[in-house]
Amino acid sequence: MHLIFLGTGGSWPCKEYNVPAIAVKIGSEILLFDCGEGTQRQFMISKFSFMQVSKIFISHFHGDHFLGLPGLVQSMNLNNRTADLAIYGPKGTIKTISTLLDLGYFSAGFKIDLYELNDNARVNFDKYYVGAFSVDHDVPTLGYVLQERTRAGKFNLDKAKALDIPPGPFYRKLQQGKTITVSGRVITPDKVLGSPRPGRKLVYSGDTRPCDAVIKNAKSANVLIHDACLDSTLEQKAHIYGHSTARQAAEVAKKAKVKMLFLIHHSPRYNDLTILEEEAKEVFKRSIAAYDFLEYQIKHAK
Amino acid sequence: MHLIFLGTGGSWPCKEYNVPAIAVKIGSEILLFDCGEGTQRQFMISKFSFMQVSKIFISHFHGDHFLGLPGLVQSMNLNNRTADLAIYGPKGTIKTISTLLDLGYFSAGFKIDLYELNDNARVNFDKYYVGAFSVDHDVPTLGYVLQERTRAGKFNLDKAKALDIPPGPFYRKLQQGKTITVSGRVITPDKVLGSPRPGRKLVYSGDTRPCDAVIKNAKSANVLIHDACLDSTLEQKAHIYGHSTARQAAEVAKKAKVKMLFLIHHSPRYNDLTILEEEAKEVFKRSIAAYDFLEYQIKHAK
Repeated sequence: MHLIFLGTGGSWPCKEYNVPAIAVKIGSEILLFDCGEGTQRQFMISKFSFMQVSKIFISHFHGDHFLGLPGLVQSMNLNNRTADLAIYGPKGTIKTISTLLDLGYFSAGFKIDLYELNDNARVNFDKYYVGAFSVDHDVPTLGYVLQERTRAGKFNLDKAKALDIPPGPFYRKLQQGKTITVSGRVITPDKVLGSPRPGRKLVYSGDTRPCDAVIKNAKSANVLIHDACLDSTLEQKAHIYGHSTARQAAEVAKKAKVKMLFLIHHSPRYNDLTILEEEAKEVFKRSIAAYDFLEYQIKHAK
Repeated sequence: MHLIFLGTGGSWPCKEYNVPAIAVKIGSEILLFDCGEGTQRQFMISKFSFMQVSKIFISHFHGDHFLGLPGLVQSMNLNNRTADLAIYGPKGTIKTISTLLDLGYFSAGFKIDLYELNDNARVNFDKYYVGAFSVDHDVPTLGYVLQERTRAGKFNLDKAKALDIPPGPFYRKLQQGKTITVSGRVITPDKVLGSPRPGRKLVYSGDTRPCDAVIKNAKSANVLIHDACLDSTLEQKAHIYGHSTARQAAEVAKKAKVKMLFLIHHSPRYNDLTILEEEAKEVFKRSIAAYDFLEYQIKHAK
């Protein structure tokens, strides 16, 4: 699970930071969380290819979070994409995005499916699911949980040898969690597999005031990416506009006991993010003020 | 008249070049020709302020020419713009742009007027006019002429003194082209003014195959900005997609007897523009392959 921040500013872009877009490579596909204007060009500057994007999750319909969609989709088309694309978002997604993708002289040569998600919706895929939850912004906004599925424990070769299991298909079946019968002996997978390995978990808050929904959904996440629009001296302003300060984001991270916090949606007033990162670190040490093109490898717990 | 290229690539952006946007500062206002995705951020990187943009002229409704509009307008709004904004374009402008500006949770706090221009339309302003003309692309597309009005000749102080005209209001009236009466003597402005000074002229071709409409409208222009999507080895491909090669752009410039040619809308395949500029220069010496943030001061003829 490889994370790359393609846009970490908010409200409007600035010279230093583009508007929100967070790409997560998981296997051979990329999931994209939000798609601000200019995301396709951020992809081109990064080492990731936008052609690998399989699913896009939009948090809400403020321009800085979705106006990069038509350009991205049109460039996918000009690059001869044939694979389907799924776009998820809150109420209004189908109308807003179908209108947006239909403007001017354009029709996509590949299938685009639009889905509206409610609070607590869950979309299931083979190796992970994505959960949506309502957060506390000034328009309907979703946060997202990307939860990898629990994987079987590690195969213990010594145990398999001790049990006299012949190498080959029997090993594979046990690894797949299947019970086998060897020379009349029934062997269950738990005899050769370690404890199940919990999947990795990434949570994106969307734009939000500090709220219990993020704390609840981000519980023990490997990574929480949280709105940190302003610093604490501007807490009242952050509240009025439906955002969080860096300190508040850190308090959420601490309560949720996440492993790592990334702050995003910095107001364009900060061309130096030190003030935001430092106030977050006072509350929660493992805080990083994310900047464009920052990469992070989310590893399995050992 | 100060020209800055904010985006010089075409079809889709690349690492080196953004999609088309050409800003022309004339007096205290900026006219913007096309507004591809990411134009607001290009403004932020440039020394121009997007708050000074008074009029936007869209050539056509392929995404790379207009998808920067909603982000630009929303950021104008977030920066508390109160001045009106006028947006001009071909048939379809009112529907397309009003839909685009109405998406998501947004309504502008300033007045935006949308105008559809026909072939040979002319929009008149105090110090200049903008003419529109149809070009040869694969969807309805306009080229634009920005023509500064002829200004009165230079005031000749020696002649005024020789005619015994008292300095002050009389001078100003003569400079404004008004006839005055001094101690019973009628003095017409031509007695103290040099020859009228022709206004500067800038022409933007939009996306187009080489065509007579550009040659006719660009006649003797100070600057022609012309589609040069591909090099001559790909002339057939350029034709199929409604574009020009750099050589064809130069041939148009030569026939129109312009003073300076800027090539734009380079295909993303060229990260080095030398091949385009060199083939244009073989036909028309004063050719420049424009790159993002290139600036050019359009001076009056001496």
